[in-house]
Parts: sequence; structure tokens; C-alpha cells
Amino acid sequence: MEFSEHIKTANVEDVVLRQPLQPPARGTLCVTGHHLLFSDREEGSSRQLLLLIRNVDAVEKSVEILLVYSGLFSNPGRHERTSGSSGTITIKCKDLRVLHLDIPGMERCLNIAHSIETLSCLDSVSDMYPFFYRPPDLILPSQWGLSSPEQHYRQSKELHGGWRLSFVNRGYSVCPSYPPAVIIPKDIDDDVLKKSAKFRQGGRFPVLCYYHRKNGAVIMRSSQPLTGANRKRCTEDEQLLQAVIEGADKGYVLDTRSSQQAQQNRMAGGGFESKSSYSHWKRLHRQMERGKALQESLIKLVEACGDASHNMDRWLSKLENSKWLSHVQTALMTAGLLAECVERDGHSVLVHGSEGTDCTLLLSTLAQLIMDPRCRSLEGFLALLEREWVQAGHPFQQRCGHSAHSHARLQLESPVFLLLLDCVWQLWHQFPLALGFSEALLLRLASEAYASDYGTFLCNSHRERWALAVTEKTHCLFQALLRPRERDRYSNPLHEPTELAIWPSVHPQALQLWKGFFLRWTQQVRQLEEAQEEIRTMVMEWGKLTLS
Amino acid sequence: MEFSEHIKTANVEDVVLRQPLQPPARGTLCVTGHHLLFSDREEGSSRQLLLLIRNVDAVEKSVEILLVYSGLFSNPGRHERTSGSSGTITIKCKDLRVLHLDIPGMERCLNIAHSIETLSCLDSVSDMYPFFYRPPDLILPSQWGLSSPEQHYRQSKELHGGWRLSFVNRGYSVCPSYPPAVIIPKDIDDDVLKKSAKFRQGGRFPVLCYYHRKNGAVIMRSSQPLTGANRKRCTEDEQLLQAVIEGADKGYVLDTRSSQQAQQNRMAGGGFESKSSYSHWKRLHRQMERGKALQESLIKLVEACGDASHNMDRWLSKLENSKWLSHVQTALMTAGLLAECVERDGHSVLVHGSEGTDCTLLLSTLAQLIMDPRCRSLEGFLALLEREWVQAGHPFQQRCGHSAHSHARLQLESPVFLLLLDCVWQLWHQFPLALGFSEALLLRLASEAYASDYGTFLCNSHRERWALAVTEKTHCLFQALLRPRERDRYSNPLHEPTELAIWPSVHPQALQLWKGFFLRWTQQVRQLEEAQEEIRTMVMEWGKLTLS
Repeated sequence: MEFSEHIKTANVEDVVLRQPLQPPARGTLCVTGHHLLFSDREEGSSRQLLLLIRNVDAVEKSVEILLVYSGLFSNPGRHERTSGSSGTITIKCKDLRVLHLDIPGMERCLNIAHSIETLSCLDSVSDMYPFFYRPPDLILPSQWGLSSPEQHYRQSKELHGGWRLSFVNRGYSVCPSYPPAVIIPKDIDDDVLKKSAKFRQGGRFPVLCYYHRKNGAVIMRSSQPLTGANRKRCTEDEQLLQAVIEGADKGYVLDTRSSQQAQQNRMAGGGFESKSSYSHWKRLHRQMERGKALQESLIKLVEACGDASHNMDRWLSKLENSKWLSHVQTALMTAGLLAECVERDGHSVLVHGSEGTDCTLLLSTLAQLIMDPRCRSLEGFLALLEREWVQAGHPFQQRCGHSAHSHARLQLESPVFLLLLDCVWQLWHQFPLALGFSEALLLRLASEAYASDYGTFLCNSHRERWALAVTEKTHCLFQALLRPRERDRYSNPLHEPTELAIWPSVHPQALQLWKGFFLRWTQQVRQLEEAQEEIRTMVMEWGKLTLS
Repeated sequence: MEFSEHIKTANVEDVVLRQPLQPPARGTLCVTGHHLLFSDREEGSSRQLLLLIRNVDAVEKSVEILLVYSGLFSNPGRHERTSGSSGTITIKCKDLRVLHLDIPGMERCLNIAHSIETLSCLDSVSDMYPFFYRPPDLILPSQWGLSSPEQHYRQSKELHGGWRLSFVNRGYSVCPSYPPAVIIPKDIDDDVLKKSAKFRQGGRFPVLCYYHRKNGAVIMRSSQPLTGANRKRCTEDEQLLQAVIEGADKGYVLDTRSSQQAQQNRMAGGGFESKSSYSHWKRLHRQMERGKALQESLIKLVEACGDASHNMDRWLSKLENSKWLSHVQTALMTAGLLAECVERDGHSVLVHGSEGTDCTLLLSTLAQLIMDPRCRSLEGFLALLEREWVQAGHPFQQRCGHSAHSHARLQLESPVFLLLLDCVWQLWHQFPLALGFSEALLLRLASEAYASDYGTFLCNSHRERWALAVTEKTHCLFQALLRPRERDRYSNPLHEPTELAIWPSVHPQALQLWKGFFLRWTQQVRQLEEAQEEIRTMVMEWGKLTLS
């Protein structure tokens, strides 16, 4: 595809850029296939803005026409002529930044706005910037990514007794949204998996995602069973789950839908693990919002954060009304319940809702952070995200197509990954010493999920990435974040690892708005960042001094 | 007075103490005239609790009687006898801590509860603990306190041109709530002050509290003029204010009441500076809540913070309903306006409401912190509090008689000083590098204002403290806070002084609940404190290393 067909005006002089936290600047604007570039005219000054057009969530334009009367007043109208026009483009970014561009000339303004609108919505993944990004200091690595089920299995000796690696999904024939390898009970052969996959939505049969070394209890995840209205059974699926609790008296199914929702899903062909068929599994229903409800909550919250009135009551009531903090609370509370089952009671748990690609992953990730110190280092956390989100098939392309500003009719968008990052931030805030990474990492990930130079969050599944050769043609974000300079920035200088579980408080009083993200483009958050920077510098200096 | 008459039971064994953040302990409870002491029975363990009884805001008791049936069932009732009884005393402290004591024996329990109730409410100031407190490492200092109008005048050379020190209030004959010395315009003689004092509520004639070196504009404070329904005038008062703006075109009166409230006060004998009498002064009305409204707001907030339900919506709606954050916002916004008049526009401002002992002091203090870097160091801030609150006559004894838990009928209580500390915390939170003191200092001051070993916050005025010889018989808190070990604890390790004004953001999104105070007895705040402690240690070590 040629980007140039979407770019009628590529360069405009004399543009005024207004952006948060910086004084307005006058300079030249360029539109390329992937970027918006702005450089100001001051001598010796450097580039002011390089914005991935993919980051643009919504574009608004307003045009002004200046009329000048020349000639005599006695004859108005005849000598009237357009002496100039100008327009303002407001760009609302997926990272919540809002920019304004004042552009001389109505036509140029409309052209630019049109280009940005079109280029920001192009669907073809292989035309996206990660396929073009070639940083001078990075070579395409021989091995892409930090973790995979294979590596995870190889590194976890404790798994080798009761669990095996299965390549039943080689070629993605059994489950299109799973990676080729998965970890399953040793005694279960691949034919059982194939049958179980047919009985689960999207083929997502139960697989292991976490083994608790202290007591051998595990977390499994899957999608809903397709029992349907006539209560179909699948003995292989039952056999698979029975093998999971081999020797133990029972396991738990943590269903992220209410009991009523699960019943409704059954009428539509889905379903749940009934007591009669899965006699050793006890079902717990904990309803979590996702999809549209979550997306609307984000939109309301961002709208509230942008409210410029000085009314405290209105702010608090809008914050309440958005329900975002309630979603954060529910997620942490449910993840805490999951971790309690595993760590305190020593029971294995199967987590799923309907598709098993959203709240399911949110819960399994949070529970692992709560229980497992190995997931709390910078590398450990990134590897966890790679396994539980990228490889496990969270549909990033669908969920992060738009963020909170878009006027487009939203289809499959939902900020589940952002909700995860917010929950991790709450953990980070409650346990400032226990996590090895910084708030800056969470902010970076929140941006990258929506628009990125890297291929990590492209596509919706391992299969789609394989089809586009993403691991051969793009760079891996997680590897880039571990380069020495980045590592400094994204580590927690106060990190003091603990072997203990970190149980988050879920009292509403203990949770708070993630200002670093939701108010990041305001002055006060910038000041807090400066203080963090100060601490970082101090600790680095201290490290150098004590080492020398 | 003999305290012993209020103590029927001085010692009880086998008491269980339950307090926040610590496991329950069993031990001995002692009641003395000023303290509640609890030591547990474990060998080698140290004292568990030493609580100033003055810190007790409310006492609740519940008693359980154990009945034991002995003898035959055929004859119930006859052999019934009380085999034991026990009671639980719940102590709600002014620093928001809640303690429980399980005490064996109903009578002892009731005796103890009665003693605590009585001793916590004793009115006689000279019986209070500061008159008995004699720490081994402190001698009574020859000079008491850090600052006074005299010292302030002596240290501020820039004042000497246009301003003088007046001792018109020697013997407290002109204004009972002012200190003996005040700073007033050089050309005004003491007779003018005496006349002006008669025209102002409580004798609080306009005095200087701040001189802005950059432009010579000043902040004056006073109480309301007593114009009354028939619009009385006082030429001396007018003359005094005219002398303040000598040479400038105008000054501002910042009235902390609404225009309507000011009118109502006029009908009751109070009033305001009318345009016709004070032609060069422009009045600005900015209503601020104080008194009962503020006290009720605190009670509601503390009740919300203690709500143990897990309902996020309920918490946010109770937080909103308490209005506390609105009061914080109004105070910061009004102080910002005051600082803008002085710093940006170069106009002098007179601040007052009715009495001029509450919101007036809140505003003058905050404005000085915003504008004057000298007030932002640890010493500077304590000296500012001494001048603007202790010496200027904030009635601490009346305002801090009870805090948020008391069931007593509240009379003159109002958490104005606490509101100040919260506003300062918001500044501290927004400018983490600009202030030289730590959050720990603000927390310490919040406790000390309600119950203290020191004499600083005793009484309602300089005169009352003089009558009781407070400066001869008690220790000064501010001086104690500056001893080396305390200074380490109360300094901000990240302090980087700036000469610039620090303008707080008053957007509702920028303000937040002071969790360190309102949730200080919960686990999560304790974890944040640990991180702060970590930073402190690191910076101290760093300082030592770079010095050596």
C-alpha cells in the first residue's frame, strides 16, 4: 500500500503547536505514513514532537474564515473577499494527551486532519510501524521474546514430575488463540486434549499457567465448556480436570461471571462445570465487568479527569459514577481470593469466564504477582506478561483499537490490559519495596499497548503473529526494555525482594486513582515525577559510591 | 487537686490490649493522673503503651456477666450465681487511634472507664501534664519559643523603614488575645491603635503579619470592625489602614465571610469596611467554613474512614458528603488569591472574618508558605506557626478540646489547625522538593495540638499562658523538635529550596485525602511509611559517604 495516497499535504509552515506542560511553539508540521513531526523555527532547537499516528484516538477540527472588506463602505458586499483562513486540529491521543495544531489555510488544515484520521485507522497490520522500525543500536534478535510455555517448562524443574509439555497445538489446529506448546498433566495424552478443546469455546481447553512450589497447587485457565441447553458432557474434559487434582480431595472453578450470566450463556451454547459432571470441583462465581461496560467506565473516568471546573463535589461524584475504581477493587479482590485458594488452602483452581481471554488472564496474572516473588522482578514481570497476555492470546488488536476519546462506534475495544496495569500499580503503591519495577514501566506499557514501535502487542494471537512473521520482521518490546539504559529507568530503586505473598488491601479507602496515568499530562503529576527522579538519582549515586 | 480521688482502681492484672497494627497483648494496666500504662507479661518485653489520658476523645464500655449453674437441674435458679464478669473498654483517641481493653471484673472495668472519662476532661490547665513533664535530657530553656513579633521585627531589616514595633498591648490591656508587641505602620501612634482596637471585635486591630520583600506589599490581619446597624465609623481605624497603603493606589480587604454573612454580622454589631469610609480599600468576600460546620465535616470524614464495608461507591459518596476536601480546596484557593494579590499584583491585603482567630490565620499562614522561601525550612515553618497561631491567639484549648469521636456536646471545637496542616500537606505533596520538613512533622503537630507533653499549644492566648507562667513551667515543643535527633526525623531528605512562589493546584483532581493522617492506623499507610523511612536512611547514608 502507498501511504502517499492518503497524504495530500505533507508539509505546512507556520503551524502553532499547543501541548500540555510546554509553551506553545511555532514551526513546521510534516505528515508521513506513520508519524506526525513538528519542528519549531527557533535556531538550534531540536524537534518538538514525533507522534506515532497510531497513537491518535480522535481528531477534531474547527475552521475560521477571515473576511476583509476593501473599498467604500457605501458599497458593502461587493468588495468583500476572503483574505485568509485558518483552522485548528485537536488531536486526542490514546495515551490521553491532547494536542492542538493551529494551521494557516483552511484547505491544508482539512487535508492534514483527513490524513491523520485515515492513517490512524488503517487496519492492515503488516503496514504498521513496527514493520518499518529499525533503530540503529538494535539488531533483530535470533530469539524473540523472554518467555514461552517451552521455556517456562524447561526452567521449572518442579513441574517435571506431574506435568508435561504438549505440542498438540502445533500449526494452531486445536486452538487458534493458543501458542503451539502448552503445559498439561503428564497422564493426559493429546487425544484427550483435542476432545476437550472441541468442548471449550474457541478450543481453549484447560492448561496450566502457575504451579505453586510451596504446596503443588496450580492455577489452570480455559474458556467456558460448551454444555449448552441440553447439558452436554465431555468425559475427556472431565478426565483432564480430574488429572489436575490427582490425589487432592477437590479443586475450585473460579468463574468470572455471575451464576445467572453463566446460566444465560448455557442457553446460548456455552455453559459451566456442573456439580454432577465435575463432582470434585466446586464452582465460585465472581462477576467481573469486561467488554463494553469496562470501556464505558474508562471513557467516563477520562472525561471526569478532563473536567476543568473547580467543583470538588462534582469531581468526586463523577469519579464514583465512572465505576473505574470499583472495577479495580473487584479485580484485586477476586485475584486475592484466587491466591488464597492456592497459597492458604492449597487447592488448585481453574479460572475462566466465557472466552477466557480477558478477565481470566487478569486474575491469573495478579494472583501470580501476589504469590510468586519471581514474577516481581523487572524481567519476571515482563516474562509473566508475555506468557499470560501475549502468548495466551489476549486480543490486543481488538481491545486496544481505540482508547477513551474516540467517537468511532466501538466494537471489541475494552481496556482490560489497562485495568491490569492499574491493579499492578495499586500493588506497587501498597508495597513500594516489594516490586522490582517502577511506575514508569507501567506507564510505558500502557502507551505501548495502544501504539508502539515494537511488534509485541500487534495482532490478536500467536497464530496471527506467526502468519505475519512478526517475530522475524519486528523488534520485541520486552527485550528492548531490558537494555541497560532502559533497565535503569524501569527498575525500582527501593526494591527489597520478599519471599512472602503480598496481600493487597482491597478496602475502598486503600485504593486510589492512578494519577500517574490518568492525570499524567498535568503539572502536579510532573512534579511528583521529578521527586521520583530525584530519589532514583540519589540511589544510583549511592550505589556507585558504596561499590567503589 | 488530687488526681487520686478520680482513681478508684489504679492497677489491673490480666488485661488484654487490642490496638491497631499490633497483635493483642495480655498484661497489667495502670491508671495515673495523666497516663494510661500497659505492660505485657512476657519476659524481657518492654512497655506496650503509654497513652496521655488527654489524648482520649471518647470512652465506650460494655460489660459481660457470666452465670454458672451449680447443683441439680431440677431446681434451676436457686444455685445460680455470678461466677465472673468482665468488660471491654473502647478508647477512641484524638489522634484517631482506637484501642480496646478487655478487663476482668465488672467493677474494675467500670472504675477504670470512669477514671479515664473524668481525667480526660479536666479543665484546669495548670493540672495538665506539660506542667509535670521533665525529660532528663532537657533543661527549661532561658528563652522560650522560636519567634515573636519582636524577634521577627528585629530580624526583618526591610521593615525598619516604614514599620515600627508597638508595645501598646503591654499588660494585654488593649487586646486580650494579642501578644504584648505588634508591628504597625511607623507613622501611627499608640493612641490611634487604642481607638482602632475599640472599633474591632475583641480588640484585634489591624497588625502586620507579612512583608513581601520583592515589592513591599504586606499582609495585615485583624477582626471585623464594629460598625453595627447604624454604620458607625472610626477615623483612627481608617487612618491606620490608610497608613498601610501609603503611596499605593489601593489595598484589598479579604473577608472570609460571604457578603450576606457580613451584612448579618453588621446587624448583630459587627460589620465590614464600607466603600464610603475606606475608599482606597476594595473588599473581596470569600466564604470559608469554620466552627461547627468544619467540626461536623471532620466527624463525617473520620466516620467514613472507619467504615469497614467493602463498598467503593459508598466510600466515595461518604467522602464527598463529608465536604472535607471541599474545605481544603477553598482554603488553598483563597490563600492562592491572597498570595496573588501580594506577589503578582503588588497590593497590600487586610484579612479578616469575624473574630480573626481562625480562617484569618489559616490564610495568612498558607499565603506566606506559598510566597516566602524562608517559611519553608523546618525552623522557618515552626517559627511561622508560632507567630501566626500561638502568638496571634488561635484559641487552641477551645478548638482542640475534642476531636472527631467525642459524644460530648461540642461547644467551641473546630479543627481549623488540622485543616491548615492538611492544606500544608497538599502543598508538600504537590511540591515534594520545596518544603524542608517531612510529613512526619505534620502528623506530629496534628497529635500535639490535641494532647501534648509540651506547653506550646496550652491555653487560648498569650495572656492566658502568661497568667499560668507556661513559659517558665513547661517545655516548648518547637524547640524540642529542633534537637538533632528529632531534626533528622522531621526534615525532608529531598529538600531543594527554591526562591520561587509555589502555586498550589486547586483542581479537585489535584487534591487528595491526607491518608497519612486519616488512615494512619491502617496497614497500608504503615507500608508507605516504611518506604519513606527507606529513602531517609538512604539519603542519610549518602550524605555521610559524600562528606567523608
